[in-house]
Amino acid sequence: MEKIKVAVVGMGNVGRYVLQAVRESQDMEAVGIVEIPERVSQISSQITDLPVTSNVEELEKPDVAILAIDSRAVPSVAPSFLYKGINTIDAYDIHGAEGALRLKKQLDEIAKENNCVAIISAGWDPGTDSLIRAVMQIIAPKGMTCTNFGPGMSMGHTVAVKRIKGVKDAVSITCPKGMGMHMRLVYVELEDGYDFDEVAKKISEDPYFCHDEVYINQVSTVKDLIDMGHSVKIERKGTSAGACNQRMEYHMSVNNPAATAQVMVAAARASVKQKPGCYTLLEIPLIDLLLGEKDELICKLL
Amino acid sequence: MEKIKVAVVGMGNVGRYVLQAVRESQDMEAVGIVEIPERVSQISSQITDLPVTSNVEELEKPDVAILAIDSRAVPSVAPSFLYKGINTIDAYDIHGAEGALRLKKQLDEIAKENNCVAIISAGWDPGTDSLIRAVMQIIAPKGMTCTNFGPGMSMGHTVAVKRIKGVKDAVSITCPKGMGMHMRLVYVELEDGYDFDEVAKKISEDPYFCHDEVYINQVSTVKDLIDMGHSVKIERKGTSAGACNQRMEYHMSVNNPAATAQVMVAAARASVKQKPGCYTLLEIPLIDLLLGEKDELICKLL
Repeated sequence: MEKIKVAVVGMGNVGRYVLQAVRESQDMEAVGIVEIPERVSQISSQITDLPVTSNVEELEKPDVAILAIDSRAVPSVAPSFLYKGINTIDAYDIHGAEGALRLKKQLDEIAKENNCVAIISAGWDPGTDSLIRAVMQIIAPKGMTCTNFGPGMSMGHTVAVKRIKGVKDAVSITCPKGMGMHMRLVYVELEDGYDFDEVAKKISEDPYFCHDEVYINQVSTVKDLIDMGHSVKIERKGTSAGACNQRMEYHMSVNNPAATAQVMVAAARASVKQKPGCYTLLEIPLIDLLLGEKDELICKLL
Repeated sequence: MEKIKVAVVGMGNVGRYVLQAVRESQDMEAVGIVEIPERVSQISSQITDLPVTSNVEELEKPDVAILAIDSRAVPSVAPSFLYKGINTIDAYDIHGAEGALRLKKQLDEIAKENNCVAIISAGWDPGTDSLIRAVMQIIAPKGMTCTNFGPGMSMGHTVAVKRIKGVKDAVSITCPKGMGMHMRLVYVELEDGYDFDEVAKKISEDPYFCHDEVYINQVSTVKDLIDMGHSVKIERKGTSAGACNQRMEYHMSVNNPAATAQVMVAAARASVKQKPGCYTLLEIPLIDLLLGEKDELICKLL
C-alpha cells in the first residue's frame, strides 16, 4: 500500500501533535514541515529528521497539507496549496458556521479547478462534535441540542487575545453555565507600558468575545495557569417517531490540541478518498476517516 | 420537491413507529403497508387510510421499503423488493457483524444489478451506536471501546425466545455488568402442556443466548413486565497523537422501537441519495440522513 504523503503546516501546539499522529499512522508518512520564514531555523533545530521550509515546493510533493494554523490565516493559506493540487485539512473555527460555509464555497471552487480536496473545520468542535450533533438529530429529529464547553482553555479565543496589542501572554478559559450557555474567563499578562483597561476594552469588543459574558483579569504570569485539557458535554432531548423524552448525552474530556490533531489526521486520510471539492466532516462517510480495511472496520464497529 | 414514497413492511412494534415517523417527515409519504397474508385483514381494520397488502405490486410503486421485520427474515425478504428496483432499509442484527457483512455482500450484488440501494443494520445498535463508536475511534485511534446495554428489553432476543416451541409470551431483558459485559434475564409464560426445564434448555442453547450469562424465569403473565425503554452507554478511553487518557462517553435512554424506527426512516431518506449498492450507516455521509437543505444543516450542526 502506498503511504499518504503529508506536509504539516505550522508547528504550534496542534502542529506538534499532528506530526506525532502522522508518525503513528501506518498509512502515512510526513514529507516535511512548512513554517513561516521567521520560524524555519528555530523549528529545524528542534525537528532534525525532516525538512523544514517556508516553501512547500522544496519538499517531496505531499498528497495532503494539514494546516495547523490560526483560523484567520486559513482562507489565504489553503488556496496556496490547493492551486498546487495538494489537498488541505484545516480546523477552521471562526464567525460561526456561516464563516465556515463561506470558506467552503471559496475552497470548493479552487479544489475542483485543481482536481484536489479540501476538508474544513475538521477538529473536535467544529468537527467530531458536529458528527455527534448529527447522530443525535438522526435519532430524535425534533428537540433541542445543547453543547456545553469546558471548563478548559479555548485555543481559538486564546490566539485572538494574544493578537491584541499590549498583550504579552494570555489564556481564555471557557466555562459552561448549562443549557449551552457559557462565560469566558480571560487572563492577560501585559507588555510594559500598556493600560489594562484599554486592552480589556479591546478584548471585549473582539468578534470572538463581543457576544459572550466575559471576565478579564490581569495576572503577572500566565504560564502557571496553562492546562491543555478541555471538556465538552452535548445533550439532546427530543422526539423520535412521536415518542418524546428521547435522551442522548455525549461527554468528552481530552488533551485539546492532541484531539484536534488526531481528527485532522483522520481527515487527511479521508481526503484522498473523496472526489474533488470542499467538504465538512458531515459530508464524508465515517469509514473513510478510519485506518484499516473496510470490511474489518465494519466488523469491528457495527 | 418530490416526496420519497415509502412502503412500510411489517406492522409490529417498530413498523407502527416507522409509519408515524414517515407521516411526520415532510419529505416522505407512505404509499401503503405490506404484511404477511394472515395479518392483512387485522392490520387493514386498524389502519384505514392506507392500503394494506401482502403484495407490494398492488401499491403505488414505492422508492423505498422499510423492513420492520424479524432480522432472520431480512435475507429472504429484502431481495424480493430489490429485484423490483425498490430500495430496502433494515435493522439487521444477527450473528454479529460477520452476519451483517454476509448480508451486505448478498444484497450489494442484487442492488447493483437492479439499480437500487439497500441500507442494512440501520437501527440504533447496530446503527447509530456504530457511528458513535466510529467517532470515538477517529478521536482516539488507540484504546478500548465498551458498549453497555440496558437495563432494557432486547427486541431481537425477545423475538428469538418467542420463536421457541412452548413459549406463549416472553421478554428478554439485557443488563449491563460493566466493561461491555452483560447478562440476560428472560421471563417466559408457557403454553399449556410444556415443560419449563425443556423450554429453558432450548433458550439457553439458542444462538442469541448461548454465549451469554442467562437467567431464565417462568412467570404467569409477561405483559405486566413490558417497558419499551432501553439504554446504552458507550465508553472509550484511548490515545490521540500520543496523548493518553482521552475519554469519551455516550449515553442514550430511549423508547426502543421508536428510536429504531426513526433511524430507519433517516436511512430511507439517505438511500435515495446513494449510488446503487448495499451500505451500512458507516459508509454514508451523515448529512444524507437528515431532513433539510445541505447548507442550512451545515450551518446548524457545524
